Amino acid sequence: MFSTETNKNLPPVTDILFKQKKAKGLSFEKLGELLGRDEVAIAAIFYGQAQASPDDIKKLAEALELNEVVVANDLGGFPDRGRALEMPPREPLIYRLYEIIQNYGLAYKAVLNEKFGDGIMSAIAFSTKVEKETDDKGVDWAVITLRGKWLPYSRF
Amino acid sequence: MFSTETNKNLPPVTDILFKQKKAKGLSFEKLGELLGRDEVAIAAIFYGQAQASPDDIKKLAEALELNEVVVANDLGGFPDRGRALEMPPREPLIYRLYEIIQNYGLAYKAVLNEKFGDGIMSAIAFSTKVEKETDDKGVDWAVITLRGKWLPYSRF
Amino acid sequence: MFSTETNKNLPPVTDILFKQKKAKGLSFEKLGELLGRDEVAIAAIFYGQAQASPDDIKKLAEALELNEVVVANDLGGFPDRGRALEMPPREPLIYRLYEIIQNYGLAYKAVLNEKFGDGIMSAIAFSTKVEKETDDKGVDWAVITLRGKWLPYSRF
Amino acid sequence: MFSTETNKNLPPVTDILFKQKKAKGLSFEKLGELLGRDEVAIAAIFYGQAQASPDDIKKLAEALELNEVVVANDLGGFPDRGRALEMPPREPLIYRLYEIIQNYGLAYKAVLNEKFGDGIMSAIAFSTKVEKETDDKGVDWAVITLRGKWLPYSRF
Amino acid sequence: MFSTETNKNLPPVTDILFKQKKAKGLSFEKLGELLGRDEVAIAAIFYGQAQASPDDIKKLAEALELNEVVVANDLGGFPDRGRALEMPPREPLIYRLYEIIQNYGLAYKAVLNEKFGDGIMSAIAFSTKVEKETDDKGVDWAVITLRGKWLPYSRF
Amino acid sequence: MFSTETNKNLPPVTDILFKQKKAKGLSFEKLGELLGRDEVAIAAIFYGQAQASPDDIKKLAEALELNEVVVANDLGGFPDRGRALEMPPREPLIYRLYEIIQNYGLAYKAVLNEKFGDGIMSAIAFSTKVEKETDDKGVDWAVITLRGKWLPYSRF
Amino acid sequence: MFSTETNKNLPPVTDILFKQKKAKGLSFEKLGELLGRDEVAIAAIFYGQAQASPDDIKKLAEALELNEVVVANDLGGFPDRGRALEMPPREPLIYRLYEIIQNYGLAYKAVLNEKFGDGIMSAIAFSTKVEKETDDKGVDWAVITLRGKWLPYSRF
Amino acid sequence: MFSTETNKNLPPVTDILFKQKKAKGLSFEKLGELLGRDEVAIAAIFYGQAQASPDDIKKLAEALELNEVVVANDLGGFPDRGRALEMPPREPLIYRLYEIIQNYGLAYKAVLNEKFGDGIMSAIAFSTKVEKETDDKGVDWAVITLRGKWLPYSRF
Amino acid sequence: MFSTETNKNLPPVTDILFKQKKAKGLSFEKLGELLGRDEVAIAAIFYGQAQASPDDIKKLAEALELNEVVVANDLGGFPDRGRALEMPPREPLIYRLYEIIQNYGLAYKAVLNEKFGDGIMSAIAFSTKVEKETDDKGVDWAVITLRGKWLPYSRF
Amino acid sequence: MFSTETNKNLPPVTDILFKQKKAKGLSFEKLGELLGRDEVAIAAIFYGQAQASPDDIKKLAEALELNEVVVANDLGGFPDRGRALEMPPREPLIYRLYEIIQNYGLAYKAVLNEKFGDGIMSAIAFSTKVEKETDDKGVDWAVITLRGKWLPYSRF
Repeated sequence: MFSTETNKNLPPVTDILFKQKKAKGLSFEKLGELLGRDEVAIAAIFYGQAQASPDDIKKLAEALELNEVVVANDLGGFPDRGRALEMPPREPLIYRLYEIIQNYGLAYKAVLNEKFGDGIMSAIAFSTKVEKETDDKGVDWAVITLRGKWLPYSRF
Repeated sequence: MFSTETNKNLPPVTDILFKQKKAKGLSFEKLGELLGRDEVAIAAIFYGQAQASPDDIKKLAEALELNEVVVANDLGGFPDRGRALEMPPREPLIYRLYEIIQNYGLAYKAVLNEKFGDGIMSAIAFSTKVEKETDDKGVDWAVITLRGKWLPYSRF
Repeated sequence: MFSTETNKNLPPVTDILFKQKKAKGLSFEKLGELLGRDEVAIAAIFYGQAQASPDDIKKLAEALELNEVVVANDLGGFPDRGRALEMPPREPLIYRLYEIIQNYGLAYKAVLNEKFGDGIMSAIAFSTKVEKETDDKGVDWAVITLRGKWLPYSRF
Repeated sequence: MFSTETNKNLPPVTDILFKQKKAKGLSFEKLGELLGRDEVAIAAIFYGQAQASPDDIKKLAEALELNEVVVANDLGGFPDRGRALEMPPREPLIYRLYEIIQNYGLAYKAVLNEKFGDGIMSAIAFSTKVEKETDDKGVDWAVITLRGKWLPYSRF
Repeated sequence: MFSTETNKNLPPVTDILFKQKKAKGLSFEKLGELLGRDEVAIAAIFYGQAQASPDDIKKLAEALELNEVVVANDLGGFPDRGRALEMPPREPLIYRLYEIIQNYGLAYKAVLNEKFGDGIMSAIAFSTKVEKETDDKGVDWAVITLRGKWLPYSRF
Repeated sequence: MFSTETNKNLPPVTDILFKQKKAKGLSFEKLGELLGRDEVAIAAIFYGQAQASPDDIKKLAEALELNEVVVANDLGGFPDRGRALEMPPREPLIYRLYEIIQNYGLAYKAVLNEKFGDGIMSAIAFSTKVEKETDDKGVDWAVITLRGKWLPYSRF
Repeated sequence: MFSTETNKNLPPVTDILFKQKKAKGLSFEKLGELLGRDEVAIAAIFYGQAQASPDDIKKLAEALELNEVVVANDLGGFPDRGRALEMPPREPLIYRLYEIIQNYGLAYKAVLNEKFGDGIMSAIAFSTKVEKETDDKGVDWAVITLRGKWLPYSRF
Repeated sequence: MFSTETNKNLPPVTDILFKQKKAKGLSFEKLGELLGRDEVAIAAIFYGQAQASPDDIKKLAEALELNEVVVANDLGGFPDRGRALEMPPREPLIYRLYEIIQNYGLAYKAVLNEKFGDGIMSAIAFSTKVEKETDDKGVDWAVITLRGKWLPYSRF
Repeated sequence: MFSTETNKNLPPVTDILFKQKKAKGLSFEKLGELLGRDEVAIAAIFYGQAQASPDDIKKLAEALELNEVVVANDLGGFPDRGRALEMPPREPLIYRLYEIIQNYGLAYKAVLNEKFGDGIMSAIAFSTKVEKETDDKGVDWAVITLRGKWLPYSRF
Repeated sequence: MFSTETNKNLPPVTDILFKQKKAKGLSFEKLGELLGRDEVAIAAIFYGQAQASPDDIKKLAEALELNEVVVANDLGGFPDRGRALEMPPREPLIYRLYEIIQNYGLAYKAVLNEKFGDGIMSAIAFSTKVEKETDDKGVDWAVITLRGKWLPYSRF
């Protein structure tokens, strides 16, 4: 996985969290249940891309058997999102997501403007989830849902 | 909207399609119903980012009152996807989508690998849609769904 | 000024609007009063960087003695913001604004996070204005105010 | 927060200052009062983006219970502004500020030239501040003010 | 060869694997036979660009006389493909491969579309091999074969 | 397909050749047979990426019912290879080929050096072909073969 | 010389001015005398990089026998400096100037900070000139003088 | 100041030289007098951007009370100029110098070609100096002089 | 060949010169003899990369049967070298030359510094030529010679 | 000289080789004689840009009084050429070589195609040398010769 060994933009805590998660045999889904958050948010916290509340930190430290103070030091601040991943992404899985924006970005804008008017879908007042579907031929499909508040441009 | 006036990578047919769509008062949703396709796919066709079948071309020409042969010439080949939009996108709405990949890309990979193993979510065997939700406070939310076949890496 | 002659990303209407504004001897301030909008918003409309309402278009066409239908065609859609200006800006005045973000961006984030928590200042639910101050030595100062809604990150 | 762990362009003193600030429970606002400077300037000093006077260094060392000589070594020179933050910024909060310049830069130039003539707003003879406003619906707004001396181009 | 000394994106295990391979006098071909995989896949594993199964790890550790647990730690996760090599490649051998795509990419697309319709050749459901041929003048030729599943675009 | 409308680096003759090929209902394969060349070479000639001999030009003009002199003017010089396609490619099909080099480039080098010594596989003394295979489940596979002369580094 | 034929960022008036200057056999030095400005400023006006006053425009139109209204339309606005020249410059003469900044930039900063304190040399309240010297061996030397107001950073 | 802490392209000796210069209370001007060189050249030597002669090294070691052998090891080779400063420079003072080239580069070329013919001003057979002027209003001005040998293009 | 059709940085005269050269059946070598210049210089003039003297223009116009005044207008100014070719070059032949600098640049510097001291080989006081050699096996070799004046750094 | 201190892409052995070369007072020319290779090749080996044969390694270790096994470990593999030098080069001497390609690249291609047909000059089957000439005025000239096998494009 992406680690601090080859990715200098990741916080050192990333490696510790992944190591303990593996040692404890915990999935992101399970951690999500323990913290009352989505599994994508948990993974984002691991990479320093989402904020952990004091309660999240306490539960995470317990689940991963880590020192709460140490975890709090590493995760307790305001995250510096956006720097962990180089863009354009070179990792094939993430590139496919990037390619979807590249290919359909104009179409999304056209449809969103038509449905909502002049504005944007927020990436802040926002949640996302990943689901697995298996069709009747036994083929797996990944379904990613992006849900953001619509923000109309202020008139000034 | 994005037009060929300021975007030299768009095919000339883009302007014609948008002009006729406006003149006929047709929405992407309505066009989608007429062609039996999703409205995002219709918008992608407008920008030269998705392939139109011969039947799509026929119906589109009828709906927009355009010459079928002309439309076929412009839309009937294999699209050159990916060049119409500059990356990173500077348009704020599209940037927010890009930012979601930038911020959550690593988390998506971690969760997808955990759920599916080593592979990617296809952007080719893929569909997407845009929905509008209004919460009980009257606030609008945009929901974008990405659904792609899971492709495991071949062992060789 | 920036014109379509040397900037291929500007919409053709930009030149027409500036030419008529000069011919009619109108300032952005005056146009702002006529439309009930801030002068910065007016200038942004000229460059295709803000949306003009049907009423704005009507008033603008009157003030500049332009054909309302033509103006509506050019300004009546959803703007494609962000592409008109190359970044980093090379024009010295605009570079100074860019440099302020470059030099103080980290400090703004630190202070905003301290005051508001984890989130962003919206650039969409947003207004801005430019003021001129003259100090007691007769020196002019430019004052730019940026005002955006605070959006906290959703917990998910 | 942005730290030297993941940002190799920050001076090592950044981490020490933030750590002590947290340990002492001091806000940028409080430190600003102690030094007679704006809180944004204090945060800029923390990131090596503004110069601290000998008196600032003395007061800062006292407030944060750090060795004055050490602080003086780290902060007493001429800052190398501009290198701490990658541009374009990927951090969402700072990106929004960057986007404001990207979207409204041309409009600011048009309005400033109209009001002041040919010249620039200085980013050196310059001050800035951040304020929090809450509207009658209880919504928070961030207000950033940029104030710079107007410099007309010399005729030569 | 490419090593972690001069390439910070390579995982530390790369150097260890190459050192032991040399010490044991093993070729990629021989390792491929031992693991039942192609030699290109073996080299890709060395550079952290392909996944090693638990069985691969066991056999690799045996063949190279390395501790299985250590190898498992380094190679047992999901690889972060694509980051080890800077693009465009500056190394002459790899540049030639890149140049082939640059020069013949459009031609490949035209021929593939003609033969298969609208879609892509998968780089995931994919295998590759390298062969050596010597012509009757004693000149050596390298033959690289790329074989990928054809994925047609979904209609949606 | 890639056309001069949206790709300013393509020679004008590209559009003419594709139009006539379509009008005459000729495949690259058929044209390849007529000229005694591989279909990939024919497509490369269409995009100005390979040289056409006087005899090729004559046959091509005949097959496409174009004026031989005009074709000779456009295709008779030394091609300026490499500029027609932007790199990294954004078109999904071509990106997959690029990604193969990105992911396996280091592995190809390691294996080629082991098999051949210090040198490169020529992209000049080089040929390539595209084949279609259908497996017993009815799935189509694309097979691309790259064959280049091995050039050892001169000792000097 | 740099012309609009090959440099799309130059205003069309550039070609007209250079053509007339040549036709009238006027040097920049002579034009500078006529307008009471430095020859570098004159050349900068030719390239749309400096502002011409109404009086400059009148004198320039007379000297070059051009229509004053046309010149006023082209030169009478606020210049968009900085976009005419690509950076880094590829033209050898201009590259040498760029290289001087690249090689001595840090040294200039160190010396200027030592002499003046924390601040910048203005490029706005600024003048420059070019002189020719011939040493006693008959060798020509170019001397460029840069003179800017020193702006100390505001304390805030 | 620019130090090796945040600038990995600076030689380690830079920090030592600056530290000793500060400890000894020596200015670049004073060091320039001691070595018989300009203060800008001294600062360039500090940053590894100019060559120090054996005699320079001896005098510098004496003045700064450093071991001559150590200084000779660090400064005695051929400098690798140009890599210490990132371009475009982000530091505001140095950016202003860069902006001067950006804005006036075309004008300098036009004037120099007119005065000297086809050639360049050498940046190698070159000297530079920084002077401080104070006008009658007490305002400080920085004056930078660039003096280079004129090199005409060889005819061949 | 490189033409203005696909290369917008080439002067329009390039196409005319190449067309007439072909029509007259003249080689660069022959033109070089006629003008008393090297064939590489002639080709550089064709691409606007070298200056043609009034006498060169006269002879060139005669040889190519072009109007001398027209040629003088296009070639008679000071060339804007360096912009005609994109760097890094994508054309395979030119890339090989670029690669030689990339691979051996450090070695050239080390050897040149050892032989000549601190300085550069001028690219202005410079000539170059291309020769063809055929070895005893009938293999052709291209030999390019670069000859430039050595410029030592001025001591200042 | 370029060292691993400031250039992270150089192999660690570079520093050791240069240090010993200096300690032993050996020139590249002398080392070239000892190994029977050109001095440029020796310097390229020092920077990890050319392959050293087992015999080269033995002789080099002897000449520089280094441990043969250590040198063999560092130099005995297949070099990763091309990554040691950043392009475009910022070092002035190397930039001049780069500039020659930039300015004359198109001309070289035109002349080489005319002399040899469609193909390239190999940079692999290639040798190069540096010579010093002194003209009758006592001026030194550097002469660099590039000699590569001509490779015609295969017809396929």
